[in-house]
This record gives sequence, structure tokens and C-alpha cells, in this order.
Amino acid sequence: MNNLMNACTDLLHEIKGKNPLIHNITNYVTVNDCANAVLAIGASPIMADDAAEVEEIVSISSALVINIGTLNQHTIDSMIMAGKKANELNIPVVFDPVGAGASTLRNQTTQEILRQVKIDVIRGNLSEISFIAGFKSSTKGVDTSMVDEKNDAVGIAKLVCHRYSCVVGITGKVDIISDGIKVAKIANGHKLLSKVTGTGCMTSALVGSFCGVTKDYYTATAAGIAAMGIAGEIAFEKVGVMGTGSFHISVIDALSNMNSTLLLEREKIDETKY
Amino acid sequence: MNNLMNACTDLLHEIKGKNPLIHNITNYVTVNDCANAVLAIGASPIMADDAAEVEEIVSISSALVINIGTLNQHTIDSMIMAGKKANELNIPVVFDPVGAGASTLRNQTTQEILRQVKIDVIRGNLSEISFIAGFKSSTKGVDTSMVDEKNDAVGIAKLVCHRYSCVVGITGKVDIISDGIKVAKIANGHKLLSKVTGTGCMTSALVGSFCGVTKDYYTATAAGIAAMGIAGEIAFEKVGVMGTGSFHISVIDALSNMNSTLLLEREKIDETKY
Amino acid sequence: MNNLMNACTDLLHEIKGKNPLIHNITNYVTVNDCANAVLAIGASPIMADDAAEVEEIVSISSALVINIGTLNQHTIDSMIMAGKKANELNIPVVFDPVGAGASTLRNQTTQEILRQVKIDVIRGNLSEISFIAGFKSSTKGVDTSMVDEKNDAVGIAKLVCHRYSCVVGITGKVDIISDGIKVAKIANGHKLLSKVTGTGCMTSALVGSFCGVTKDYYTATAAGIAAMGIAGEIAFEKVGVMGTGSFHISVIDALSNMNSTLLLEREKIDETKY
Repeated sequence: MNNLMNACTDLLHEIKGKNPLIHNITNYVTVNDCANAVLAIGASPIMADDAAEVEEIVSISSALVINIGTLNQHTIDSMIMAGKKANELNIPVVFDPVGAGASTLRNQTTQEILRQVKIDVIRGNLSEISFIAGFKSSTKGVDTSMVDEKNDAVGIAKLVCHRYSCVVGITGKVDIISDGIKVAKIANGHKLLSKVTGTGCMTSALVGSFCGVTKDYYTATAAGIAAMGIAGEIAFEKVGVMGTGSFHISVIDALSNMNSTLLLEREKIDETKY
Repeated sequence: MNNLMNACTDLLHEIKGKNPLIHNITNYVTVNDCANAVLAIGASPIMADDAAEVEEIVSISSALVINIGTLNQHTIDSMIMAGKKANELNIPVVFDPVGAGASTLRNQTTQEILRQVKIDVIRGNLSEISFIAGFKSSTKGVDTSMVDEKNDAVGIAKLVCHRYSCVVGITGKVDIISDGIKVAKIANGHKLLSKVTGTGCMTSALVGSFCGVTKDYYTATAAGIAAMGIAGEIAFEKVGVMGTGSFHISVIDALSNMNSTLLLEREKIDETKY
Repeated sequence: MNNLMNACTDLLHEIKGKNPLIHNITNYVTVNDCANAVLAIGASPIMADDAAEVEEIVSISSALVINIGTLNQHTIDSMIMAGKKANELNIPVVFDPVGAGASTLRNQTTQEILRQVKIDVIRGNLSEISFIAGFKSSTKGVDTSMVDEKNDAVGIAKLVCHRYSCVVGITGKVDIISDGIKVAKIANGHKLLSKVTGTGCMTSALVGSFCGVTKDYYTATAAGIAAMGIAGEIAFEKVGVMGTGSFHISVIDALSNMNSTLLLEREKIDETKY
């Protein structure tokens, strides 16, 4: 039995017991799914992005998730204000650099957020994390566009961990989670997840939910990513043949039915030293 | 047979016959569900929040629903402009003070809207309505966080009715509707409704749809709240075991199949004098 | 066998092979459905509306879809900037004038976009296209409100084609596609599509997806409209009896399962000369 996954199941129990409030400053494309994913896993979402209230809202929250999927100047300021306040109050901050590498605005905002806010977890695809690592990236919109070369990805993850003193989660065919020293690879998931918008955003929202009940952000990140991967597998088995609409709904179903048994039975986590 | 529910079924027929246009100024988290709920019950939604058009849009509408779920200064001004125009034209205004009590922005906006716009129906949870009543509230985000003490809730509802000369709908385990004199309690609904984001917002949009065909806002509020509660019960019976994603979709299904027979068979309305 | 539909099936293959990136500047009501429809048909969506990035985003895209469903001054500027950049780079631009005729803001914005941007395809209902044609329109929100007089509609479509040198798609009981000379009528679809918000927006996003792989915008428009109509029929047959929530999801399912066989078997395209 995998120790990391055991720790993940403990966190899932904690979420369901404590029902932490998760503040999301996110995009208008996938915000409904993010809120429902947070609810499904047992936490409570609050979406608020006006500069006039984000400091107050984050102050009553257990975690902050910043997602730059549909940026505008108004929310950029709010993201930084909320992030700084979270730092001040030791509230964990998860950052999803959606589309980093795709436009100057996203690139500069990503760098500005990383400069002004102490981020605890960065969750993105290889293209986005590569951009943060300083590698030339050719993000095709918000999808993974670089070849997922596994060894490179681990190196990139560790580099970003060290540079920003944070946990990094790279999601793809095989997900990579690292705190800079430990590395976990998760082979759960299903390719249909890339055919529904927002599964990456939902994963970040789940990571935020897990961060809301622990200071062990490495485990929290693994838990959020594993939960989504396993939900994708279950959803595909149940309704994959019907199409991507039903699959989308079934992913939320699977998240709402997630429990320790499912996590332990299905986990494909590999924590071999790399 | 309950007279109030008979009146509700009449309004449902009216909606399906008249197909009233319902103007929603609402949040970007649950806006799609609100539009689909309005369509499902037989009305027509229009979402518009720019100051340059809200007065014109509300002028061609049969009701206005104001929801402060994701506030920003831009839409606050639009809410007040649209509300004043609706007042001028005797178009009913439903107000959903999402998260009132949770931040200064929401508190001040709630008070500002109530000061500048004559509201016909306020629909919220006990925490939000308690804030409006002037009670100390500890809103945990947008969920109900106060213990639902039934008798207190009736008192709070009546107090707000009298202060703002409006109908109040407090939704919770047992919903309370009052016009300040009459009080209806509705025991329909299912706890899974709290595990899907936007069921409160959708309820307010339904109340708006019913207000679009009558000047009896007390009955309209009861009808909207009962329709959502009954839809929740039907959805749970059909697909509750599958998870919150399927339940969410099934609630919309049930709203689209709502009819007099279902309302009358399932209603748990109690209008005993309190 | 219909030649036009054969050409449509070729485009569907092209989309699935090339996976074009489709830039959408759209409304917050139906944006999630638009992204999922684009993914379902085999293309890749990117939603971006800030003036600081739309030119860059459109530059890496294969088509631009402009939808004015929830206008504000901020996004109007972005629409025009992105449109001009697309023109400069010969990237096709699809325009969905949601609610044109319903407010001065929508009317003026529609005219401003048509004045400043060379549009390749306009997709709307008869009410919206009539407004563009200069006919008195009484748009009831975003639904079709004029009687669908078929012969008039063809004349209106052709008039708009000539005035703006573009392809026009008018969706309704019978859809009309014209490039000003050729006219196709498509009798696919199901009335339940009008009971789900965003099916029009999704149709425009699909048209954009098809425009991303060809310069034959007439065929691309027919393909996008036929795909949605046929998806509606399939969805109704599968789950129509369950309600509008399930129907909504099943439309996405059907889009994700769309293939040449389904298009050719079910097409009700009539290209008789008018």
C-alpha cells in the first residue's frame, strides 16, 4: 500500500469533516465546474474577484486558488491583493497559470504574480510550467502542446520548485508532483479529460480544497490530482461511450462519490526516487 | 388541497402561456443554470448587465432579478439603474443578496440596493436575511451557516417584510415565505441541493419567472421555491445515487417537466397561522 | 447524395485531423458550452477578451468568433481589435449578433463591428439578421420572435450577404445559409434546442471551428449549422423525454460522436435554386 495515497485519504476525510471554504479567483469559462468540483469533494467554494472584497473574503477562507484563464486588468489586481493577504495570514495559495506562454499578458501576469505573491502550489500542464521554468514554450492555447518527455518534466518541475520554494504539479498523460526533493508520478486519468474544458481548472480547485486542511502541500497536490485522474477513469468506465457531455457530468459524479477505498484501489502512484 | 399551491399551479400555467421575459443581472458562476432554469419553467431569460443597456432591457422585461453573487463596481451601478427603471415601470424586482454578511462590499451593496430600489421579493438563506434584518450574521461564504431555528426565522422574515414592504423567502431545510402577515412554510427539497452551486440563484430566477406573470408576489415566491424543492426531490429519486453532477442536470430536467399534478401531489406547504 | 453535405463531411475530417485553435470572444452565459462544443467537434477553444491580449491570441488562432451575448464596453473594444487583426492576417471572422434589435447598445455595437471589421460569416436568428438588414425588428431578448416566413428570410439573408460580402446563416425551424448567390435550406434540428440557452452560441462556435479549416465559408457555415441540428435530433431521440437538462448534455454527446455517416444519413439539406 502506498504511503502517499494513505496520507491523501486522510486529507479527504479531513475535507469532508471540516468543509473548508476555498476562495477562487478564476475564469468565467470553467468557474461553475470549479465550484461544483469543490462542493463534490466536500469543501465549500466562494468565488469573488473584486478588489473591494478579495482581502476580506480570503481572510475567512482556508485556501486561495488563483487561475488566469480569462485575465483582465481588474482581476489581475485582485489576484495580487488576495495573494498578498493570504501570505500575510498563512493561508495557502494555489496558482494555475492557464495559457502561460500563449500571450504577453499571460506571461507578464504569471511573472508578476510569482514576484509579488508567495505561491505554495503551482499546477499546470508541461507547457505552462516550462514557461515558468524559463524554457521556450509554444503553448497552443491552454492545451498541452509540448511532447511529454518524462525525464525532462521532472527536471522542470524540480527547477520551478526550487526557484519559487513551492510544490509543483504538472498534469499530463503521467502527472508529476514535486516539492523539489520528493517526486511522485501519477498514471491515473483518461484522455477524454482533455476533451472537456476545465478539467485542469477543476484539478487546481481540488488541490486548493486539499490545501485547505493541511500544511503538507505536496500530499495535498498529489491528492487533488489523483482524485481528478481517478474520477476521470471512473467516469469513462461508466459513460465514456456516450460522449463528452455525459463524461463531463460523470466526472463530477465520481468526485462526489470519491472515498478512501476508491483512492487506494485505483491509485497508480509511483514515488520511486528519480 | 392547499389553496396556496392551487394558486401556484395557476401561475405555472400562466408562465407557460405567456412566456415572460426575465431580465437577470447575476453572477458569472451560476448564470448558465439560471438561464436554463428560467427556460425550463417556461419563461425566457435575458442576461444583460452593462449600464448602457440595462434600462432598455428591463423595459421590455416582465421581471428583474438582481443577484450579487460576484459583485463588481460596474455591475453594482447597473443593478441600481435597472432596479430604479423597473420601479418606474412597475416591473417586479427580485433581490438575491448572495453572501450578504460575508464582506463589506456585499453588505454595503445590499444596503445600497435596498435604499435606492424598491424590492418586491428578497430571497436568500437565513444568514443573508438575518444580515438584512440587522442581526449579527456569520455568513460562511454563500452557504447557510446559522442554525435554522424555525421560530426565529419567521420573526426575521416578518421583520424584513415590514422594514422593506416586500415579500421575503428564506430557503433552508424548511423554507419560509412571508409578506409580513401571511407565512408559508415549505418542507419540500433535498439536502443534495446544497451540494450543487447555484440552486439558490436558480430559485431566485424561478421566483422572478413567477413574478413575471402576477402581482401576487407572495404566491409567486412560494411557487418558485416550491418548484425548486420539488424538482430537487424528483431529481434525487431519479439519479441521486449517481452523484452531484447527474443530480444537477436532473434538477433542470425536473423543472422542465414540472406541472400542476406534480406540484399538488408533492407540496408540503403549511400555512398555519404563526 | 448531397454534394454540399459531402463537402461538410470532408471539413469534419479536416477538423479532427488539424485540431484548429478557435478564438472566442463571447458571453459569460454560454461560454462553457461553446468551449465544450468546439472540443466535441474536434477543434481547440481559447477564450480571451482582454484588449491587452486579443491581438496576440487571434494571431495564433485559425478562426475568430465574436458573440455579443453579454456586452460591455471593455469587450466591445477587444472584439474590434481582434477582428481587425484577424482581417489583417486573413483569419476568418464569425459574428453572432446576439440580441441585435433588443437594445441600442447591441444595435450600435453590431453596426460598429460591421463597419470596422470585415466579417466572413454572420450567424443569427431571423430577428437579429433582419435588424442587420435594416428591417424593423422586435427582438424578444435573444429568442426568435418574428414569424419565420421562409421566402422573406431568403431575401433578407441574400441582402445581408451582398451588403457585407459575407456568408449568412439564419437559424430557425428551417435554417437558411447563403453566400448571396447559393442558398441552402437545412431542415434538421429539434424544437427542444430553443429550450436550452446557448444552442445558438454553440452553433456559431461550431461554424467558427469549420471556418478554421477552409476558405469555403459557405460550406463551413452549412456544416456547423447542420452538425448542431443533427446533434439536436439525436439528443432528442436519446433523452428528450427526460427533460431539458439531459437534452443539453446529450447535444454535447452527439457533437462529440458526430461523423460522416451520421451527417450523410440524417442531412435534410435542400439546395434547390430559389
